[in-house]
Amino acid sequence: MYGFFPVIVMMYSVVTCPLAYIFILLCAFSSPAESAKSDIELDAKAQHNHQIDSLNLLLYTFLLTLTVLTIWLFKHRRFRFIHETGLAVIYGLIVGALIRYAGNASSVVHMTVVPEKDKYNQSLPPDSLWLRFPNKGGSPNVPNKTYAYTFRGEIDVDDSEIELKATFDPEIFFNIILPPIIFHAGYSLKRKYFFRNLGAILTYALIGTTLSSFAVGALMYGFIQLRPYLKSSFTFLDTLYFGALISPTDPLTILAIFNDLHVDVNLYALVFGESVLNDAVAIVLSGAIQNYGERYQSGSGGFETDAFFRALGDFFVIFSLSLLIGTVMGCITALMTKFTRVRDFPLLESALFVLMSYSTFLIAEASDLTGIVAVLFCGICQAHYTYNNLSVDSRTRTKKLFELLNFLAENFIFVYIGVSMFTFPKHHFDPGFIIVGFLCAMVGRAVNIYPLSFLLNLGRKPKIAYNFQHMLFFAGLRGAMSFALAIRNTVSDARQAMLTTTSLIVIITVIVQGGATMQLLTWFKIPSHQEGEPSGMWDESRYTLTKDKKAVET
Amino acid sequence: MYGFFPVIVMMYSVVTCPLAYIFILLCAFSSPAESAKSDIELDAKAQHNHQIDSLNLLLYTFLLTLTVLTIWLFKHRRFRFIHETGLAVIYGLIVGALIRYAGNASSVVHMTVVPEKDKYNQSLPPDSLWLRFPNKGGSPNVPNKTYAYTFRGEIDVDDSEIELKATFDPEIFFNIILPPIIFHAGYSLKRKYFFRNLGAILTYALIGTTLSSFAVGALMYGFIQLRPYLKSSFTFLDTLYFGALISPTDPLTILAIFNDLHVDVNLYALVFGESVLNDAVAIVLSGAIQNYGERYQSGSGGFETDAFFRALGDFFVIFSLSLLIGTVMGCITALMTKFTRVRDFPLLESALFVLMSYSTFLIAEASDLTGIVAVLFCGICQAHYTYNNLSVDSRTRTKKLFELLNFLAENFIFVYIGVSMFTFPKHHFDPGFIIVGFLCAMVGRAVNIYPLSFLLNLGRKPKIAYNFQHMLFFAGLRGAMSFALAIRNTVSDARQAMLTTTSLIVIITVIVQGGATMQLLTWFKIPSHQEGEPSGMWDESRYTLTKDKKAVET
Repeated sequence: MYGFFPVIVMMYSVVTCPLAYIFILLCAFSSPAESAKSDIELDAKAQHNHQIDSLNLLLYTFLLTLTVLTIWLFKHRRFRFIHETGLAVIYGLIVGALIRYAGNASSVVHMTVVPEKDKYNQSLPPDSLWLRFPNKGGSPNVPNKTYAYTFRGEIDVDDSEIELKATFDPEIFFNIILPPIIFHAGYSLKRKYFFRNLGAILTYALIGTTLSSFAVGALMYGFIQLRPYLKSSFTFLDTLYFGALISPTDPLTILAIFNDLHVDVNLYALVFGESVLNDAVAIVLSGAIQNYGERYQSGSGGFETDAFFRALGDFFVIFSLSLLIGTVMGCITALMTKFTRVRDFPLLESALFVLMSYSTFLIAEASDLTGIVAVLFCGICQAHYTYNNLSVDSRTRTKKLFELLNFLAENFIFVYIGVSMFTFPKHHFDPGFIIVGFLCAMVGRAVNIYPLSFLLNLGRKPKIAYNFQHMLFFAGLRGAMSFALAIRNTVSDARQAMLTTTSLIVIITVIVQGGATMQLLTWFKIPSHQEGEPSGMWDESRYTLTKDKKAVET
Repeated sequence: MYGFFPVIVMMYSVVTCPLAYIFILLCAFSSPAESAKSDIELDAKAQHNHQIDSLNLLLYTFLLTLTVLTIWLFKHRRFRFIHETGLAVIYGLIVGALIRYAGNASSVVHMTVVPEKDKYNQSLPPDSLWLRFPNKGGSPNVPNKTYAYTFRGEIDVDDSEIELKATFDPEIFFNIILPPIIFHAGYSLKRKYFFRNLGAILTYALIGTTLSSFAVGALMYGFIQLRPYLKSSFTFLDTLYFGALISPTDPLTILAIFNDLHVDVNLYALVFGESVLNDAVAIVLSGAIQNYGERYQSGSGGFETDAFFRALGDFFVIFSLSLLIGTVMGCITALMTKFTRVRDFPLLESALFVLMSYSTFLIAEASDLTGIVAVLFCGICQAHYTYNNLSVDSRTRTKKLFELLNFLAENFIFVYIGVSMFTFPKHHFDPGFIIVGFLCAMVGRAVNIYPLSFLLNLGRKPKIAYNFQHMLFFAGLRGAMSFALAIRNTVSDARQAMLTTTSLIVIITVIVQGGATMQLLTWFKIPSHQEGEPSGMWDESRYTLTKDKKAVET
């Protein structure tokens, strides 16, 4: 049947692409009539901007569709050398390069203004600017036009102005893309093997990620000292921040293959559990480092014990309070669904579930805590307590809803990593920094896994064997969280070099390590196809083949 | 069990509200340390804005949760005098009033600037402003700060500046809230009774809505002529636009009750079918009127035959092309799912379905057509062709996904109508205009139903009885589409008066007509509880009671 694949893709492309490009051309070349007044021009311009936005989104929808179709083809033919996220990144890179080198930059008109003296003497820029155009003809009947502008951020005027094509505000990752991914990770964590290995998982995630961050930070700082031209732009805090953002792992590819092959359940639980929790650790840690940096800058300039302890306090307070909010909201939902008969109306029940989970995120964000950490623990509570109170309808509905959201969000972020490699204007390529960053990331992972495994093995049964340790080391792919943290702040050269390095590390680990997993499993002699395992372990696999009987029953 | 209800709501409120308010207070009163530099202040300010955004969203999530819990309570106790949308509006009104009269306005700092002469002589305002702050101390090491501002829109300086509290950009309705509602309407339209009554539905929706728009427009214009103080601000096009936006109906309440009572299927099909299609007609019609207005303004000022026919052409071209795009994309999805075995992987299949449906919207919008109309017809095609090719898993997943999205979006829009009545700054209360608008909306509905029913009855079997005609007349509640069209453009006094009138018409029809439906059904002697009907007719009811056997199987 897959003979139809090219036909389908062709048909799809034939419809969407020409439409898109015809209208890009129409938009670009249509010149407004001379007699038209500025109102109409303004309206046309707003419409034009809306079209460009729609085209941008269409581009990503198109790439996602293409990824979905190719994944299907690969699954169908049982290709396993590349995972969907790898595919998404590759498609993103190709299209990003096309946009960068083929597209002509449509010009964004800007005007520089200076505040009038004595009229504004606050240190902060105003929230909005009103630009008043005196009417030209000078006739008293035509009123002056005033336009409002809203604050976007500080910019570096020295940059040659490259237009932000096909890029989004980095904050959408933290507010829209990551929350469903992280919630889903928590919500699908209802596995006894997770709790059986909880000690090891917490050790790797809490202690290991912190160790790795400081190791990477220190090594990078050492390297910076050897390269005088980098010395001026990087501080120790910058490299420490880099350590924190490069430490969380995202072993999607590995887990998908583990799932397909039914690899040892303890190894699966270790890899999955660690990756879920180290995201939470990394986001709070990087926030604390940033806060320390701000306090440090505002102070005398030396090492500030006070600021350091406040940052340490920040870390624990923010982590615990976020965890608390997530847990409390999860438990309230569990009580609501237990003690009312809202389950008689599954749609209401599902709506309640979604609203409560989303409000967890919002409460944490509004309280200056970390929404991502809150939804993670909310998801874990929802899976453990609320899920059992839900009606059958709501169980399937919420599971399937978050599974789909997670799939789309994950693939979107990887497509975006690919595209932004070429289109995001704030990249700074420094080959030395990139190579050393790569090596440090590997060392950081080793510092996390090997010493801690040794310590864990002193008290643990069954012990974590050397082949499992190697696999844990190689499962250290970097992904969505690292990228999101890196793109959040690109104000200085140091931060831009970090973004470039992080993007490249994500791309290469996802493609290379993801592709090599099958070989590595054989190489390390890791047992798979364990038929004796309880069947409940794998029922949450990503793709259920409906050819089997069990999947048809939904 | 509903004794627990107050406890649950209390617990929920106890957790969310104080948290929210404590942090509002903290945000409002925390003054930055004097020694802090402007970078940190800027960062704190960005964080503060993010908190405010989160609180705004939290407010709406809270209101939606409250609505869900109250609906459940009412359903549980079998109260039918108020529908969920009515509840949502009422909660919205209460909270809107609280925000308006209890909240203290946090100040938004703005600065007025004038373009430097001779430096900028285009008629359009620039896309972005760069505001340069010369450094204060004058020391050469500190660079000047430059901040970027993006264009938001034209403003009316005469307005006393009221802050936009708890309000959103009106365009989110057209790009985020309405598409899932309209798609769901199309996707749940797989009913043979719809096609059996297609002639009548098309007559009411296409001819009826146009008739009603022109009738309302003409009547309102007549009224304006009698009130000299309104004469200057309203043109005939304005009143015609009002006619177009007030004509689409949204009989959610009525349909929910029809569903519960199993009212006559033909009546149900007529009310539902008409309301689905007249949304599409209204949005295209109002767009054509606006385009005509722009051409008209740019010309000589008299009635322009040329512009009129171009507007008429616009209407048909935009409607047909949008319909075409929707249908073609729906059919491509159907072919994709038929001729590939992507159904072996339900998650991929569902993702494909969602991506294709969303890209329909984006293609239409990017082509300067109407996305809403395209997704409507895409939804109808998906229901008719694609749905049958999907795996069982994807069928339930997509049905349940869009049902949930529709529920949340609908209730959000009604909560927002309530809140914005008090918080949206661009309201203009004119009692005369409101009363006459109300009467005209009723006359418009009568002009749609009675003459067309008479004509339809000439050739139709079974005839549409008088009691059905009265019910069709009373089912003319106004809802989401009217509000979204009204709030889209509030630049002039005329448009602001229209927004106020439309909001009030929506609120009152939803509460009063929605509440009176049960009485009216008895009054008009409309048959219900038809046990002889085929069971497939009602299986898509909004709330399935899992107490029954059939619902448990899902």
